[in-house]
Amino acid sequence: MSAPKKSVALSGISVAETSVCSIDPDRGILMYRGYDITDLAEHSTYEEVAYLLLEGDLPSDGELKSFHAELGSRSLPPAVSTIVDGNAMDASPMETMRTAVSALSFSDPAEDAIDRENERRKALCLIAQLPTIVARYERRRRGQSVIDPDPSLGYAENFLTMLRGEAPTAEEARAFDIAMILHAEHEMNASTFTARVVAGTNSDMHSAIVGAICALKGPLHGGANLAAMKMFDEFAAGGSIAEGVAARLEAKKPLYGFGHPLYRAMDPRAPILRRLSEQFVDDSEPNYFEIAAEAEREAHEQKGLWPNVDLYSGVLYRYLGIPTDLFIPLFEMSRVAGQAAHVLEQHAGGKIIRPSADYIGEPPRPYPVREPR
Amino acid sequence: MSAPKKSVALSGISVAETSVCSIDPDRGILMYRGYDITDLAEHSTYEEVAYLLLEGDLPSDGELKSFHAELGSRSLPPAVSTIVDGNAMDASPMETMRTAVSALSFSDPAEDAIDRENERRKALCLIAQLPTIVARYERRRRGQSVIDPDPSLGYAENFLTMLRGEAPTAEEARAFDIAMILHAEHEMNASTFTARVVAGTNSDMHSAIVGAICALKGPLHGGANLAAMKMFDEFAAGGSIAEGVAARLEAKKPLYGFGHPLYRAMDPRAPILRRLSEQFVDDSEPNYFEIAAEAEREAHEQKGLWPNVDLYSGVLYRYLGIPTDLFIPLFEMSRVAGQAAHVLEQHAGGKIIRPSADYIGEPPRPYPVREPR
Repeated sequence: MSAPKKSVALSGISVAETSVCSIDPDRGILMYRGYDITDLAEHSTYEEVAYLLLEGDLPSDGELKSFHAELGSRSLPPAVSTIVDGNAMDASPMETMRTAVSALSFSDPAEDAIDRENERRKALCLIAQLPTIVARYERRRRGQSVIDPDPSLGYAENFLTMLRGEAPTAEEARAFDIAMILHAEHEMNASTFTARVVAGTNSDMHSAIVGAICALKGPLHGGANLAAMKMFDEFAAGGSIAEGVAARLEAKKPLYGFGHPLYRAMDPRAPILRRLSEQFVDDSEPNYFEIAAEAEREAHEQKGLWPNVDLYSGVLYRYLGIPTDLFIPLFEMSRVAGQAAHVLEQHAGGKIIRPSADYIGEPPRPYPVREPR
Repeated sequence: MSAPKKSVALSGISVAETSVCSIDPDRGILMYRGYDITDLAEHSTYEEVAYLLLEGDLPSDGELKSFHAELGSRSLPPAVSTIVDGNAMDASPMETMRTAVSALSFSDPAEDAIDRENERRKALCLIAQLPTIVARYERRRRGQSVIDPDPSLGYAENFLTMLRGEAPTAEEARAFDIAMILHAEHEMNASTFTARVVAGTNSDMHSAIVGAICALKGPLHGGANLAAMKMFDEFAAGGSIAEGVAARLEAKKPLYGFGHPLYRAMDPRAPILRRLSEQFVDDSEPNYFEIAAEAEREAHEQKGLWPNVDLYSGVLYRYLGIPTDLFIPLFEMSRVAGQAAHVLEQHAGGKIIRPSADYIGEPPRPYPVREPR
């Protein structure tokens, strides 16, 4: 369920000009640099979309080829592997990602002055290295051997192979790639905004993305598809889905995967993720796709609610064999492309972001001077 | 030199209510929870000020005693020491601090729901542990043995002992403590604002402070006293200070340590830091105090400029034997108290911070469908 307006600060207040993304909340249209997300999901790849977000235009065949080659640099520096390996058993996935990304700059440090080409290169490295961090972490905490990245593979195939230890089907890889396209960018959400505030001080790409990870980690931002999966389990354990939805509405408890602070109708990403997850339905119980689909019908019928990006994304990831607590790291793996594009914009604009606050505290008061303690 | 208004986004726009700090830009008054910074610098200690910022009131003798005991937990978990030790030779101070603070949560993880008492406890740990991180890093990169924190010592004495390997004089410890008081809080600056944006998603204290570190690292935010020291070296190498100041004004180059986006007259912290640094003047050349003082006179005479917190802080730190590239880590060591107070406020208010942007990019365009590649 969307947060009520009053719980959003700066809502509707423009903090920057952007060419990266536009949203039409009334018509339910999301565009990356002028291209409709529905078209991109149908025709494009995540690598192509990452290029589009960073560079402003779709790549030519030659540009895509060299971009793919650049994205092949997926290996981690030893200092980062050491941190992941040494802490995978204790640290949560987002804490590990936050720390590992921070340590990536040890061998690629910030320069005194921002250089666009260098920051763009760092962004590419991050897009390439985040999947390696996530997969390495997961293998290590399961006590499995680490599978090195394979530069000959595409983005999705490489990641799923590193994570699961075997190559995905073409259908699985394509579904995952589209999920990454759909999560790659969404204007001035809290994590991207954090990246821009950090970049506004002329801090470097690694710092800006670490900041974004800090914000995405928050349950009010990155955690809704996890929460939706837990809610589905609750529905499955209870009576009918209709009753489960009604009970949450009645108790004014959040209905995860529904509503959006921006979209007033359908989130255009929801029906794409519904189609993607439907194709993997099997005999296993509970049937998460069916629960989500019935929850969609009931929430619309009972309360006129529309699904958002979070209703089916967890269902899809579950079908792809991905543990629930990796959902937020996957979100960041994808969103880093959009965040990095915003960082490049913020650096180019050169503005520091420094708002004000209303003081409501104690009036001036004298210091109670006493004998020295 | 202060940034021109147009280069500050959200300037003057209130993003939150706060009881932590108030600034009177016209009269040059800075207050922490109603207490004038000048009074606090004269009568208080950094530990007392950290308590004031977090709790809202000055502590009683008993409260201060138990707060001091809590702040005695300055040791680092092994995972964090390992990261510092393993990377001190390669990583810059702020990159190390960012990564080490991120790793602190491995043994103190975020909970599903925000618990104020637990977040407050984490804030205290961070205030206690940041000096240990900075000192350990510095000793390791110099190839010196690490000096463990001593819970029986006060904040400043403990830090300077860990850093330098010998106890400071009472005068040195008091001057350092006051410098920490002066840097502890400054309303909605970019790093504190970053912490609030992160906290707005209900992300945890460690994430919020890591985000703040990412922003403070930026040269437009945390780096002005470093830049001032470099400028002083330039002045000392050239002709007279008057000519050096005039040349920078003429060339419209920044005059570091002067002006402020908020204060229209004297930054109240500047004269306190001037007095603190003056007492350590010795025979060494260049005489940084004299350079800064003459620059202050010249900048005021030539252009009516007022000094800010950054004009004398680097001079003081230099007299205390602190390397220039630790100045920003020291800033964070102190400011973490104010940032944490804002994080607790943001958590209590429960608002996500999600602004908007003006789209100035490509209009809608069709995807150029081609033969599959």
